[in-house]
Amino acid sequence: MSSSNIFIGETIGTAVLILLGVGVCAAVTLKGSKAKDAGWLTVSFGWGFAVLTGAYLSSGVSGAHLNPAVTIGLAIEGGTAWSDVPLYLGSQLLGAMIGAALVWLAYYGHFQAHLKDEAVLAEAAAAPKDAPGPVLGVFSTTAQIRDTVQNLSTEIIATTVLVLAILTQGLNDEGNGLGVLGALITALVVVGIGLSLGGPTGYAINPVRDLGPRLVHAVLPLPNKGGSAWEYAWIPVAGPLLGGALAGGIYQLGFA
Amino acid sequence: MSSSNIFIGETIGTAVLILLGVGVCAAVTLKGSKAKDAGWLTVSFGWGFAVLTGAYLSSGVSGAHLNPAVTIGLAIEGGTAWSDVPLYLGSQLLGAMIGAALVWLAYYGHFQAHLKDEAVLAEAAAAPKDAPGPVLGVFSTTAQIRDTVQNLSTEIIATTVLVLAILTQGLNDEGNGLGVLGALITALVVVGIGLSLGGPTGYAINPVRDLGPRLVHAVLPLPNKGGSAWEYAWIPVAGPLLGGALAGGIYQLGFA
Amino acid sequence: MSSSNIFIGETIGTAVLILLGVGVCAAVTLKGSKAKDAGWLTVSFGWGFAVLTGAYLSSGVSGAHLNPAVTIGLAIEGGTAWSDVPLYLGSQLLGAMIGAALVWLAYYGHFQAHLKDEAVLAEAAAAPKDAPGPVLGVFSTTAQIRDTVQNLSTEIIATTVLVLAILTQGLNDEGNGLGVLGALITALVVVGIGLSLGGPTGYAINPVRDLGPRLVHAVLPLPNKGGSAWEYAWIPVAGPLLGGALAGGIYQLGFA
Amino acid sequence: MSSSNIFIGETIGTAVLILLGVGVCAAVTLKGSKAKDAGWLTVSFGWGFAVLTGAYLSSGVSGAHLNPAVTIGLAIEGGTAWSDVPLYLGSQLLGAMIGAALVWLAYYGHFQAHLKDEAVLAEAAAAPKDAPGPVLGVFSTTAQIRDTVQNLSTEIIATTVLVLAILTQGLNDEGNGLGVLGALITALVVVGIGLSLGGPTGYAINPVRDLGPRLVHAVLPLPNKGGSAWEYAWIPVAGPLLGGALAGGIYQLGFA
Repeated sequence: MSSSNIFIGETIGTAVLILLGVGVCAAVTLKGSKAKDAGWLTVSFGWGFAVLTGAYLSSGVSGAHLNPAVTIGLAIEGGTAWSDVPLYLGSQLLGAMIGAALVWLAYYGHFQAHLKDEAVLAEAAAAPKDAPGPVLGVFSTTAQIRDTVQNLSTEIIATTVLVLAILTQGLNDEGNGLGVLGALITALVVVGIGLSLGGPTGYAINPVRDLGPRLVHAVLPLPNKGGSAWEYAWIPVAGPLLGGALAGGIYQLGFA
Repeated sequence: MSSSNIFIGETIGTAVLILLGVGVCAAVTLKGSKAKDAGWLTVSFGWGFAVLTGAYLSSGVSGAHLNPAVTIGLAIEGGTAWSDVPLYLGSQLLGAMIGAALVWLAYYGHFQAHLKDEAVLAEAAAAPKDAPGPVLGVFSTTAQIRDTVQNLSTEIIATTVLVLAILTQGLNDEGNGLGVLGALITALVVVGIGLSLGGPTGYAINPVRDLGPRLVHAVLPLPNKGGSAWEYAWIPVAGPLLGGALAGGIYQLGFA
Repeated sequence: MSSSNIFIGETIGTAVLILLGVGVCAAVTLKGSKAKDAGWLTVSFGWGFAVLTGAYLSSGVSGAHLNPAVTIGLAIEGGTAWSDVPLYLGSQLLGAMIGAALVWLAYYGHFQAHLKDEAVLAEAAAAPKDAPGPVLGVFSTTAQIRDTVQNLSTEIIATTVLVLAILTQGLNDEGNGLGVLGALITALVVVGIGLSLGGPTGYAINPVRDLGPRLVHAVLPLPNKGGSAWEYAWIPVAGPLLGGALAGGIYQLGFA
Repeated sequence: MSSSNIFIGETIGTAVLILLGVGVCAAVTLKGSKAKDAGWLTVSFGWGFAVLTGAYLSSGVSGAHLNPAVTIGLAIEGGTAWSDVPLYLGSQLLGAMIGAALVWLAYYGHFQAHLKDEAVLAEAAAAPKDAPGPVLGVFSTTAQIRDTVQNLSTEIIATTVLVLAILTQGLNDEGNGLGVLGALITALVVVGIGLSLGGPTGYAINPVRDLGPRLVHAVLPLPNKGGSAWEYAWIPVAGPLLGGALAGGIYQLGFA
């Protein structure tokens, strides 16, 4: 796979993944959105079809990793060269930032209205001094109950399931357009992980899914946006990377 | 592809798309409907499966564009001859109008009951003089927050994602019945776009999806129907056309 | 296709279709059910996956019509011999009755609890003398607004879409396991029809789906069950048959 | 199929099935979960995609039974050797216990918060002495209305549908990657069974899905967890086993 294919596929694919994924968080959160308060099933299907769209767009170009945890898992399993890993990761982070910025553009008026809403401001004023800002949850994940061991465990477990499912695609592939069907199955697996394991931490299961939008939240000129909760930010990066590596190891030991 | 195939496939396919798509908007809106207030997830799945049904019906006949933005994107990419474009667009607009008229027939008693309901009439009387009529939202899209730049941007971004996904089907096709699987994936991409990017403008992402039903709304003998919001009508036409062209360009530069 | 294959496939397939379809209506309606009041999206997905399960079970045995409207459409189109039609229809009606009886068994205690519930009895007592009984809606369809022309039109329109989608499968088939994929697409088309066109009449779109369970409702020893609304019962039989024939005609004229 | 493949595939596959399935029950139940009270459609899709993920992971390794009812049905039908049955069942039970324990880890803080919540404790104190504990429903199924004949019938009926659908896959298989598509269809059949037949007993339809997590509930050091309702536990074991055997018999008589 050429470097330019990796760069184009991963940047555009991850941008679309995050545009639609962070987009559904904006849709259910922001004042005036037609999807406001549409519920967790909506969020989970939204992220799943975000994966579908990003993966479908890029599978013929870069192999559709779109996630450093997947890239690490495939490098351990042997499907991706270690020398390609830095380009995959850099393209994914860039794409994630582009996607988050596009959500800001698509929901611009809604961000403004939400962050100037009196009820939102009153709630923010009543929160502890270092609490996450009122729209941080649109961009990045937060734990409902902060506990380093548990939060990290939840992200590791959820990501291990995801990457193991992706790695076993090779076992099922019989040359019948599995690229497309595989993107669909992976998307529905992501819906399932969101429904089942998203409750505690909001399931980053992808380091750039959390870090890219958090960086964008930190730099965007949003009024009254509050803090970006950087003290939590390492968990949705480290947990998924450990989960991806664990899946690579399990696959090598048990399935290969 | 013969002219008669284009005409039949696009007219019937777009009619079914709009029958089911405008149908779900009627279902969640009108007085006495069993699906009243069923929520945004219902609307998004309804439109997605509307695309599935229309595309499945017409893919073997006309290639299932059903959307001028798709036709423009394919013409730029080279998959459709520019000389066929007018017939595609005309058939799509005709089909969209037929579909919207069929919704009126299927929900006739519910339109009558809704538009004579005292609560509905009271709300309409209290609205500003040029506000959209009480059932316009069944037929056409409206922006929750009117802002030309943002509304246009949202439609451009959402349509670019849709058309780019459709254009990359060729990359994934290995001759394994992708026509059918491609219709399914496209439908789920549309569900995803609705969930994630439908919040601000109700995601036309298709010029005839908005214009066809708006024309039907303007001519139908609905009691107390109010205005058709023509001052907004150019945005869901121009935005998707620009998005389709942008997707065609991105595909040519980055993927072809 | 042998007579015994038609009989076994259509009877078992339709029994499963109605078991799961009437089952979801019981699930969202009856006192004490874990799915009570789960909403229209639940009902629509429930019926769609009921079609999927019944069709998947029987597609390799009898071709999975499971619906007289489909059988009529295929006979007009030429895919099914007219001499096989009576056996198809009889098996479908028998299967539908078996399926409805199995729902009664699976939800036995819930039917008893519901029909002895004071609130349910009070509502039934306050209803007009010829109103449908309190659990008829579990078994059969009812129009929210009774209007013969509109109710019939809604059923004709919805069934035409369904049968036309099924007839065009032949156009898409390239010998790649479309039997299975076709069952999935048909199921999702049924979800879409439910979401979009189910609002007025509850979408029978299948004569035996309504008639079979209505017969079972009429004979079951349910306490306080009330009437079976036979004066409406011809509409969900005639409408789907006319829709199936119309789809067969449209297909012959426009697609064949 | 080698013994080590059966052991690895069934243990890991069932662990993932139960991790995601019991996970969605935790997600909609426990205090502080982002998915709390997300409803029955969420639960049904969660279990369906749990089946998809577990089956996808293990289909190339052990054939993805993940359920003693499936193993028994396949043994009767002839697809699985009787001598392999004990290893399948043992691996499935082990996997189910591992999966339930992983849910406890992923939701650790939420279990603690839920079981120390004053409202939860007050409700538990007001319940009859032998009532199920306040989080037993996260782990195992319970009947809304206890009635041995009906509860057993519901589980038998629902499992017969499931196993019959799985057995007929062979009829549909034409060597086109049905392993993958079959996992998807089976998953959606499970969603359908949950929506339609889950109302009375919560649809175990799999002996180890109920027994494994119940054992884990019995041994875990959860505060104020209450009883494990062992007097009911035989029904979700016996019902699915009888349903699986019945499906095997029906398949042999009617479809083979």
